[in-house]
Amino acid sequence: MAKKYLPPKKRLLSDIGEFGLIKILRAKCEVSSRDIIRGIGDDSAVINIKTGTALMTSDMMLEKIHFDLSFTTFYQLGYKILAVNISDIFAMGGTPRYFLLNLGIPRNYNSEDIDELYSGVLKIAKKFRVAVVGGDTCVSKGGLVLSGTLIGDAARVINRSGARPGDGIFVTGTLGDSAMGLMLLKKLGRHVHIQNSKFKKSPHPPFTKGGRGGINDILPLLKKHLLPDPAPLKNTSGITSMIDISDGLLIDLSHICDESNVGAIIYRDKIPLSKELVKTAERFSLNPVQYAMHGGEDYVLLFTAPSGIRIKNAVRIGNIIKKGRFLIDAEGKSATFKAEGYEHFK
Amino acid sequence: MAKKYLPPKKRLLSDIGEFGLIKILRAKCEVSSRDIIRGIGDDSAVINIKTGTALMTSDMMLEKIHFDLSFTTFYQLGYKILAVNISDIFAMGGTPRYFLLNLGIPRNYNSEDIDELYSGVLKIAKKFRVAVVGGDTCVSKGGLVLSGTLIGDAARVINRSGARPGDGIFVTGTLGDSAMGLMLLKKLGRHVHIQNSKFKKSPHPPFTKGGRGGINDILPLLKKHLLPDPAPLKNTSGITSMIDISDGLLIDLSHICDESNVGAIIYRDKIPLSKELVKTAERFSLNPVQYAMHGGEDYVLLFTAPSGIRIKNAVRIGNIIKKGRFLIDAEGKSATFKAEGYEHFK
Repeated sequence: MAKKYLPPKKRLLSDIGEFGLIKILRAKCEVSSRDIIRGIGDDSAVINIKTGTALMTSDMMLEKIHFDLSFTTFYQLGYKILAVNISDIFAMGGTPRYFLLNLGIPRNYNSEDIDELYSGVLKIAKKFRVAVVGGDTCVSKGGLVLSGTLIGDAARVINRSGARPGDGIFVTGTLGDSAMGLMLLKKLGRHVHIQNSKFKKSPHPPFTKGGRGGINDILPLLKKHLLPDPAPLKNTSGITSMIDISDGLLIDLSHICDESNVGAIIYRDKIPLSKELVKTAERFSLNPVQYAMHGGEDYVLLFTAPSGIRIKNAVRIGNIIKKGRFLIDAEGKSATFKAEGYEHFK
Repeated sequence: MAKKYLPPKKRLLSDIGEFGLIKILRAKCEVSSRDIIRGIGDDSAVINIKTGTALMTSDMMLEKIHFDLSFTTFYQLGYKILAVNISDIFAMGGTPRYFLLNLGIPRNYNSEDIDELYSGVLKIAKKFRVAVVGGDTCVSKGGLVLSGTLIGDAARVINRSGARPGDGIFVTGTLGDSAMGLMLLKKLGRHVHIQNSKFKKSPHPPFTKGGRGGINDILPLLKKHLLPDPAPLKNTSGITSMIDISDGLLIDLSHICDESNVGAIIYRDKIPLSKELVKTAERFSLNPVQYAMHGGEDYVLLFTAPSGIRIKNAVRIGNIIKKGRFLIDAEGKSATFKAEGYEHFK
């Protein structure tokens, strides 16, 4: 039977050392499952696997590239590194199972920081029944490094390459919220202690002054950026292609077009926007549709399906065509689009 | 049928972008195997798996912590990140299968650097029949980051926890070579273009001057550090516990003692030393046994087995006892030892 985990006293990592830290994490991540023969604590994890299709994905988050510690907590980082990996497994129509997390940690961190980070990992792990089975911890001289690998399985795999002319294009949630949340966080420039849709401490955001809107307007946007919650498509029968929106709608749709060798039409006014996004964009005189098309980090699913198929919990935003990539505005005017969004090195 | 891979022209990553780089790596890593439904190029890799025991391990290498680019080539880094992961799978008695590599790359690198790194990865991947099936590439502001995850399988898993009093303690190769190689590289302070035990270009090492020894004396030491070649134990029947020596003999043996709840006696003069280590240590007035006991990064296997078992290709260096950790010198004098070697944060 698993012993109750007691969080360690706050101590410098240079005092407890790598092996002291591993001992703490091993106790914290202990799972009892018939399939997991061995989790953290040996040269590798040992898992009982059944015949079928395995999915393997890996995603990295680097300080000053993917996150800024001046407005992201360790808890939120831990939550997000697993969330983005889960999103990749959902994008293949799969179920996430086993997670390995590598951490490169600056020498001056303490045990509480890493304990908090793992609390975030375990929060979302529990939600999606993922087991944390291994990883590597080491010192970093180049800021905090998080590198996660997630193993899953799937009864039916959905690739990026199956879209066909005539298919509808669908998304499973509102777009642009995360990018707008990031914009707000940059303006705030400090931590917002939300865990689980609730503020842990009062954030006193400057945006509440002067009656220009309350905290309720921005909370869902901040949460979408800091604690994204991917959701699987429950019924994938008939779905021809799928991807998760991480780099932005237009760039991720372009991946489907490239892999499927097809074109696409998107109707700008069909792209689902949250009322919070619209309200915040208005307040700051920004275009919400730009955030929705290029923002990225939405972690909602983008998929295609033939017109006959009944689709629940998704919004049709366009159609797959033979060739060309077009955006249609509310007046029916057409413009071509390119794969614009977030791309590393560019 | 896989097309022949043509290395790309040397271009800045800021010109080709993340997706241009992924396209190059996808072509370079293409494998044709019935089990691999999809490698690089979708949200996750898709693999056909059979019922059995899966092994999952993950290891990270960070610039200025694990390596120094002033005396390590990209080829050697690529080779080593997979080598250290393979070593972990061998330490469990397993066979390595599928590899995912995450790279954090400084913005000013070019396509040739990453192509060279992947040539190193693919060299050792081919040697051990490992398929490179995925990963993540992104910009890093904190130096080069390599984070690898390796999936393997095993008919019989060997843990760290099965050692019993009376067992012999064995190692599968000479120790200390890699640490001495690192010492030499730090003195050299520049690249040595060895690939596959041969110098690609003449290294003109300063150590050849004055007739104090030729390049042949140091080549195997440099190679052990730059291009370590893990080797599996072919017959694991009867083996009670196993670990790979990455942090140093005494620290890794202590892991076996901790997990198995036993003690150990090591005979210092039984620890296998290469003639190159002995010769180089003599030349620089160093103690070769210190390098062998504390050096680390040997990537040879340390295991225990009952005395009755016939062991091939391994050297017995001591015995498992009930309690205590002792080093016996050539004169039979005994001293206790601690888990000393490389530990992050300390």
